[in-house]
Amino acid sequence: MKIAIVGASGAVGQEFMRVLETAPMEIDELRLFGSKRSAGRTYTFRGATTEPVRELTSNPADFAGLDFAFVSAGGDVSKQYADVITSGGAIMIDNSSAFRMDSDVPLVVPEVNGDDAFNAPRGIIANPNCTTIQMVVALKPIHDLSPIRRVHVATYQAASGAGATAMAELEHQSAQIARGEKPEVSKFVSQLAFNLIPHIDVFTENGYTREEMKMHLETKKIMHAPELEVSATCVRVPVLRAHSEAIWVETERELSLDEVRGAFEKAEGIVLIDRCEALGYPMPLDIAGSDPVYVGRIRSDLSNSKGISFWAVADQLRKGAALNAVQIALYIINKRK
Amino acid sequence: MKIAIVGASGAVGQEFMRVLETAPMEIDELRLFGSKRSAGRTYTFRGATTEPVRELTSNPADFAGLDFAFVSAGGDVSKQYADVITSGGAIMIDNSSAFRMDSDVPLVVPEVNGDDAFNAPRGIIANPNCTTIQMVVALKPIHDLSPIRRVHVATYQAASGAGATAMAELEHQSAQIARGEKPEVSKFVSQLAFNLIPHIDVFTENGYTREEMKMHLETKKIMHAPELEVSATCVRVPVLRAHSEAIWVETERELSLDEVRGAFEKAEGIVLIDRCEALGYPMPLDIAGSDPVYVGRIRSDLSNSKGISFWAVADQLRKGAALNAVQIALYIINKRK
Repeated sequence: MKIAIVGASGAVGQEFMRVLETAPMEIDELRLFGSKRSAGRTYTFRGATTEPVRELTSNPADFAGLDFAFVSAGGDVSKQYADVITSGGAIMIDNSSAFRMDSDVPLVVPEVNGDDAFNAPRGIIANPNCTTIQMVVALKPIHDLSPIRRVHVATYQAASGAGATAMAELEHQSAQIARGEKPEVSKFVSQLAFNLIPHIDVFTENGYTREEMKMHLETKKIMHAPELEVSATCVRVPVLRAHSEAIWVETERELSLDEVRGAFEKAEGIVLIDRCEALGYPMPLDIAGSDPVYVGRIRSDLSNSKGISFWAVADQLRKGAALNAVQIALYIINKRK
Repeated sequence: MKIAIVGASGAVGQEFMRVLETAPMEIDELRLFGSKRSAGRTYTFRGATTEPVRELTSNPADFAGLDFAFVSAGGDVSKQYADVITSGGAIMIDNSSAFRMDSDVPLVVPEVNGDDAFNAPRGIIANPNCTTIQMVVALKPIHDLSPIRRVHVATYQAASGAGATAMAELEHQSAQIARGEKPEVSKFVSQLAFNLIPHIDVFTENGYTREEMKMHLETKKIMHAPELEVSATCVRVPVLRAHSEAIWVETERELSLDEVRGAFEKAEGIVLIDRCEALGYPMPLDIAGSDPVYVGRIRSDLSNSKGISFWAVADQLRKGAALNAVQIALYIINKRK
């Protein structure tokens, strides 16, 4: 396999390298692309030093002969360079929101709709938003028991969702506060340390943020369920790199907790931590850096006999970004065999 | 007025003193009670030094001649000393969960059910749980427009809910991490800095925690609405002293956003911060130390035509504890005039 990473020096780009390091995939070539600023940097990958990061330009020769290009450098870069990146036949797996809702670009979470990856006429496959990915992995086994009609979800999103500099800013703010200094704010609209910011991405006309609307729209597309309605409240919390979600679902028929637990236990990509005792539930600090979507706190919805409530945590940089994209490539490779 | 504070040196006890400092109430005497450890301490109150904190004992003489006793020293202390505290005719306003669900003890939030305070045959009035207080203040104006049937709520609860030592532990953990040290954990079941703990109070048989069941049960009692069903997920977050809640309500009839906004604007105890722009919503860091319940992010529920979603933030130590208790006393004093 010949692989490119575009945005190699960013938080997600670096996570791509860590995921690919141990991915069950023979990699004959790894080509790294980045901004002018990061051009020339090298990294260690599978025991060797990589070729230097190349500055991303519109030269199609740069992308000749590639199988997959993992792209995570923001929506504008994805739009501007998509034609170049795919010109040599590479499948572009795009981490931005640029193409997610395009009808000719599949939006894929392998555990949910892996086969959609084969319907990519433009050579572009979109990786969903991090909050959507971990939610749909958890919704799928329930939806298979009985179609989900409504979802209410409150998110607790880590700084990592805003990139490596945002993570550094949160740590820096905490250190400044500990030293009695006034914390510097630049990446978020307000201090994030010891605070919550109920505002991720820009506001849309209906009062929801675009982040919240991504959960609404992307879930319908990935799950092939136009009637599945999601209402989300997305909140940035002072956590470094795993997102948590408090979720309520309403299904067509009443489900027992045993049925739901059984479905989660068998589900691909999910680890259940669900004991009614101290530490018997997933927490973001514990699961940072790991691959699965962790589910716990499973309960009947006290306000709805057809409702189930649970808590889902996943590493935003892994399953929420780099890992899911690599899993899409692996799904394609394995199905082709 | 002759006032006692039981648990005077705790986080809530200290907040009682700050609230009473400026409360519109003539205070002729302030008697402070605490554990053996805090006995003897003095504080500055309304420009003078207080009498030393007395060790709480079962001597009825200590509570003779009092009008109100504000009690915040845990449920066991409240149960053990309630008879002594009320023996001289004082109204005990209890901050613990000890008596909240007793049929002969009213559970009062003045903006919602102030008159219930006059039906206290045992001389005990219970102050609701902090998360419930701020939620019912926000539910009331909607419920008055059209009865609420269902509530889904995800909480983002500050360290202050677990007391002054918990707040200190969160700050200490953050400082230790900034210095590269391993953070010490003693107050919570896990490190809270840079983490979330979806577990507050003990687990109950149905998988909900007692904190979550408080929101379910107390809301029915305060709002006189046995059919109003609340499903809560309560989560501790690394914030110092204000609780935030993502709330969805379903009402009997469909409400417009204008109606809901209008009702919030007129409602007692609520401040609306609801603009679709950066900082156009309440955040816990900004509102710590202030009195109202702040409401923002008001939207139609995309999954339910009879649903409304919003975000509510209030200082856990003020409206969530000390302030509400003092407001109960003021409500009684003013109605008696």
